[in-house]
Amino acid sequence: MLTPDERREMTQNRRIILASRPVGMPTSANLPIETQTLAEPAEGQILVKVIYLSLDPYMRGRMNAGRSYAANVAEGDVMVGGAAGRVVASKSPKFKEGDYVFGMFGWQEYYLGDAAGVRKLDPAQAPISTSLGVLGMPGMTAYVGLLDKGQPKEGETVVVSAASGAVGGVVGQIAKIKGCRAVGIAGGPEKCAYVVDELGFDACVDYKAPDFLEAFKAAVPKGVDVYFENVGGKVADAVFSRMNDFGRVALCGLIAHYNDTGAPEGPDNLPRFMFNLLSRRLSVNGFIVSDHPDRAGDFFRDVSGWIRDGQLRYREDIVEGGLDATVEAFQGLLTGRNFGKLIVKISEDTSRAG
Amino acid sequence: MLTPDERREMTQNRRIILASRPVGMPTSANLPIETQTLAEPAEGQILVKVIYLSLDPYMRGRMNAGRSYAANVAEGDVMVGGAAGRVVASKSPKFKEGDYVFGMFGWQEYYLGDAAGVRKLDPAQAPISTSLGVLGMPGMTAYVGLLDKGQPKEGETVVVSAASGAVGGVVGQIAKIKGCRAVGIAGGPEKCAYVVDELGFDACVDYKAPDFLEAFKAAVPKGVDVYFENVGGKVADAVFSRMNDFGRVALCGLIAHYNDTGAPEGPDNLPRFMFNLLSRRLSVNGFIVSDHPDRAGDFFRDVSGWIRDGQLRYREDIVEGGLDATVEAFQGLLTGRNFGKLIVKISEDTSRAG
Repeated sequence: MLTPDERREMTQNRRIILASRPVGMPTSANLPIETQTLAEPAEGQILVKVIYLSLDPYMRGRMNAGRSYAANVAEGDVMVGGAAGRVVASKSPKFKEGDYVFGMFGWQEYYLGDAAGVRKLDPAQAPISTSLGVLGMPGMTAYVGLLDKGQPKEGETVVVSAASGAVGGVVGQIAKIKGCRAVGIAGGPEKCAYVVDELGFDACVDYKAPDFLEAFKAAVPKGVDVYFENVGGKVADAVFSRMNDFGRVALCGLIAHYNDTGAPEGPDNLPRFMFNLLSRRLSVNGFIVSDHPDRAGDFFRDVSGWIRDGQLRYREDIVEGGLDATVEAFQGLLTGRNFGKLIVKISEDTSRAG
Repeated sequence: MLTPDERREMTQNRRIILASRPVGMPTSANLPIETQTLAEPAEGQILVKVIYLSLDPYMRGRMNAGRSYAANVAEGDVMVGGAAGRVVASKSPKFKEGDYVFGMFGWQEYYLGDAAGVRKLDPAQAPISTSLGVLGMPGMTAYVGLLDKGQPKEGETVVVSAASGAVGGVVGQIAKIKGCRAVGIAGGPEKCAYVVDELGFDACVDYKAPDFLEAFKAAVPKGVDVYFENVGGKVADAVFSRMNDFGRVALCGLIAHYNDTGAPEGPDNLPRFMFNLLSRRLSVNGFIVSDHPDRAGDFFRDVSGWIRDGQLRYREDIVEGGLDATVEAFQGLLTGRNFGKLIVKISEDTSRAG
């Protein structure tokens, strides 16, 4: 049931559009807020009031004109993004008013559109915010990337960069569950302490520390068998130089390079990189979680079970301030300012009161 | 039985040692010929008169001090290399005088040493020179790399660089046997004509031609699913830019870079390369055939069968001139001067007369 206030709100939707493609770091000039008036849902459509908006590194790629792994956002369109919200009007037999749902609702306060691809959430089972993180795309990325691409074996050393992040934190904890040595790389002593003390990694190395290379070497005395790659840059250089023969790399992201405006200055490190792959017989596997829907059932069963058993923890960094705080929060994500799964609270979480 | 002449020869062995590690292209100053006097075989040893010496790109890596995929040659030691020859004296129960054998006999006229790892050849089944090429390490490299790492499926496009070479020629022919489109890349119109007309590839593109990029693009109208990488450099750049989503790269060699003396000048192409792996979900697999002895039986059965059926052809580039011609021939291998499997004839092939 909608209050008269909500009915009035429905007609006005604030949203962030991609007005122009960013060069380097995205700004609010690239991503302004505009207001639109929404119609009532047509047959088959739903109207969703967004509660939590997920911010994820992959979104930077969608802002570019160049080829990425998914269709880019067209200039003038609302920015894409997963979100959790509440159905406030439905002309779809799948959903009724009051249902909590997850979908690719975008950077906006309301989603009006097709119900296809929208998934119902049960707030009694897990907080609806987890659908954006540990029980959503980031968690499944960790699960599929580590298990299917990394193929870790008991006793091996697994290294993950961006270890305190939404994906990295899950990677290391699954590695521990599978009997591996889990070593994280993160930015700053606070994040590293969290990765070891709260998430239970065997070690975590601060890439901002001046002795990073020596500390990393000491943390992987038997070398690296599996590397879950989220960042690229000098972190990746350090890990690749310690890979063991027959090591596997799950290539998930390259956040250090997402704002690159061209090829960095030389020397050209590609030949050296390829020699390393050859001489150590490494395998590097780029992957995107959306290619693996067949693993969704296994993922949900295993990870929700591990959370229930206390074997797997997660942390959310929920930014207040709604849509107005979104661009700045996204900038922080690209420079490592967030601590845990980054989520913007777009409106009050009514599922917690209920 | 040895003639008195051969007995006298036995005592004098000419061999090429690695006197100093080459910087860039190896020269005869790095690889001088020296003469040594050999003792009689001790218990368990054999003395082999080398007939054919194999020259292969991997040998350039063995000349370096840096880590490679196998133990490097120590300064002052004879250069490593596979060779076919005839047993002229044996104190091993495995071999008798007159046997034709293959082993890692090195760049020399005689091998005196252990019989372990030496394999008997049957000249009635196949010319003994094939033990260095199509039925030896290069052929098995093609077989394992294409089938196990490339995983080609019927109807897919397979590209191989150094396509007229000992490995590349076999790769493309196996791709055809498996129902794929086989596209080669080779240097010069003569080699390209051979690859298409004699080996039966669907197309071959000349990387030395000014319109290489356009010609390559035209040769792979449906993109590239499997790339068998032998060379690196601009050839690799062209192929990587045309890879299809979920493409597989079997990384076998990087001959364009073997004489690099450091990282080439920038820009740094590594970030762009990694983005490509990620956005197209490519898999790159470094491999060395010697890690896969379990496939030797399948390889020999399949490839010798295909040769017998006329489905698989090969070409040998046999250099006359013995040990004195070896260094120059090896230089030619690194610049693409050879045409077919490069072999140096060290002494007369007595198996052909027999």
